[in-house]
Amino acid sequence: MIKLIMDTMGGDHSPQANVEGALLALEKYPELYMILSGDQAAIEKCIAEHGGADSSRYEILHAPDVISGEEKPTDAIRLKRESSMMKAIKLLRESDDITGMISTGATGALVAAATVRIGRIRGLSRPAFCPVLPTMDGRIVGVCDSGANVDCTPEQLLQFSIIGSLYLQNYFGIEHPRIALLNIGTETEKGDALHKEVFKLLAAEHGADFVGNMEGRDLLTGKYDLVVSDGFSGNILVKTTEGTALEMLKMLKRDIYSKGIYKFGALFMKSMFKKEKDLMNYQNYGGSVLLGTEKIIVKGHGSSGSTSVLRCIEQALKMEKSNLNAKISEYISGMHNDPADKEDN
Amino acid sequence: MIKLIMDTMGGDHSPQANVEGALLALEKYPELYMILSGDQAAIEKCIAEHGGADSSRYEILHAPDVISGEEKPTDAIRLKRESSMMKAIKLLRESDDITGMISTGATGALVAAATVRIGRIRGLSRPAFCPVLPTMDGRIVGVCDSGANVDCTPEQLLQFSIIGSLYLQNYFGIEHPRIALLNIGTETEKGDALHKEVFKLLAAEHGADFVGNMEGRDLLTGKYDLVVSDGFSGNILVKTTEGTALEMLKMLKRDIYSKGIYKFGALFMKSMFKKEKDLMNYQNYGGSVLLGTEKIIVKGHGSSGSTSVLRCIEQALKMEKSNLNAKISEYISGMHNDPADKEDN
Repeated sequence: MIKLIMDTMGGDHSPQANVEGALLALEKYPELYMILSGDQAAIEKCIAEHGGADSSRYEILHAPDVISGEEKPTDAIRLKRESSMMKAIKLLRESDDITGMISTGATGALVAAATVRIGRIRGLSRPAFCPVLPTMDGRIVGVCDSGANVDCTPEQLLQFSIIGSLYLQNYFGIEHPRIALLNIGTETEKGDALHKEVFKLLAAEHGADFVGNMEGRDLLTGKYDLVVSDGFSGNILVKTTEGTALEMLKMLKRDIYSKGIYKFGALFMKSMFKKEKDLMNYQNYGGSVLLGTEKIIVKGHGSSGSTSVLRCIEQALKMEKSNLNAKISEYISGMHNDPADKEDN
Repeated sequence: MIKLIMDTMGGDHSPQANVEGALLALEKYPELYMILSGDQAAIEKCIAEHGGADSSRYEILHAPDVISGEEKPTDAIRLKRESSMMKAIKLLRESDDITGMISTGATGALVAAATVRIGRIRGLSRPAFCPVLPTMDGRIVGVCDSGANVDCTPEQLLQFSIIGSLYLQNYFGIEHPRIALLNIGTETEKGDALHKEVFKLLAAEHGADFVGNMEGRDLLTGKYDLVVSDGFSGNILVKTTEGTALEMLKMLKRDIYSKGIYKFGALFMKSMFKKEKDLMNYQNYGGSVLLGTEKIIVKGHGSSGSTSVLRCIEQALKMEKSNLNAKISEYISGMHNDPADKEDN
């Protein structure tokens, strides 16, 4: 049995989408047991609307409060102890048999609470998000970090490259991820002092797997498997890609409906547009795994519907099976036991 | 007569695209006189290929050397004095009757040379790029800075908001540009210490015209006229938008050609796809104006063809007519004469 907690509050469609997603997952995965954190009455109502569920497969953790995106993460941890997110984090920390948690709530509060209350894998400075996007040649590309850390040191960026790379290897089976550093040009000498330093660290750590600097324009080309970035620019990269794709799909739809002849032509291309829409709809890809914490944390989009929540639960299940955290631990402790490293310290 | 210098080297299609673009501009604008900087023989060859030009309308500034993107900007200024870019900058500085310069060459070297040799408008800390992109509702949105400054102070970001805003007013006639700060979330308290500080400065300076933080995903929605950012994240924003749009157009084309029925349907939509391709083809928009230097500097894409170069020259001509630099001078000196400001100093 795998036990996961669902934070049912904090998203645009909470708690309905979160509860519905959890119930869909319970029906699909017999090994799954879920704890639903949130307002008991509201959750029970959602379960009734779904048509009920097997009560031996889930339990409700009553938490009447919600954390909003406007709240300071440190305040949320201190003051919102009765919130669905903080009660979920507390239970996750205290229960050896609970593996992970899924939330569509406030990102900053989630990262702060996971770091402070759940704890990082020994030797890691910071956890980081690594969402994965589809490339135009049918591959995927991960971006680590995409928003957990706005200010970063060169060593932290090096660690993001390591945990991101182990994630792609163990979760997606990409044996040698081609790693790039997000920068403002492809030339070696580009960027600020931080990026020049990180460039050297990545080259030393990853050898030929590090392919150099990458510009924002090349994310979807399929030339890279992992993009290393600080959380600020990584966030801009991922959201801009998603937003541009979405706006272009909207434009396409609006233009097609603007003239009868276009609408007629589009009739022959229905299956093509459907495929493209599915490819570019980031709701289909679930959420983003927070790498580097001692338990599994999956953060879904605030706008997640029930399908997206289901995908997030599937990500947590697959994370559990990938044994990623043990691999990260092993790699990081190997780095710290490096004799060359000891000499320096 | 308006005299402009064209740096004919350093782009992917140099010198052909640069010379051809300059000759097209001379034919279109009788008030224009151009100085073509670069290898004399190569430029003459391009002119001959074009079928000649009126020799009273242009002159060649012989410069045998080229600056590559791999060179450190400070080295380029010191060591590449015979390059097309540095000779152009030198002539621009020394000649009162030459108004501006267009280059498709190395961005870093251009910014450094313009800052050091041409000089900034009095009171401005740094020049900044402000490219303009088309939004999905038929408007435009500017991004300032998009790559001239990788490390910025809060005061510099405030200045970018001012020069960007004056540019949109005086060049594009947008009376009250809606200004947003590029950030990782829309909430007030988002981002690192720098962005929280800039948020306050922008609110104080622009009042109701400052509409708050913007996420990468909303650039093309038409909700904003000017996005303020440091040059690093602004560069990621602009290039990611351009790259995603380009990759999606490629996907559309590839998918249409993958099946006969799609190709058939697309026949009825030819004019629609053409319009969309033109809208999203950033080559049609010329280059990016460098705001804040004492003379006009327009930087074209490295990949510019002759049409894009022509657009860059048109931008320089329109800049000249907009009288923007005088407006910036006036605004900045007004800020410095502010009694409240004097008290602090």
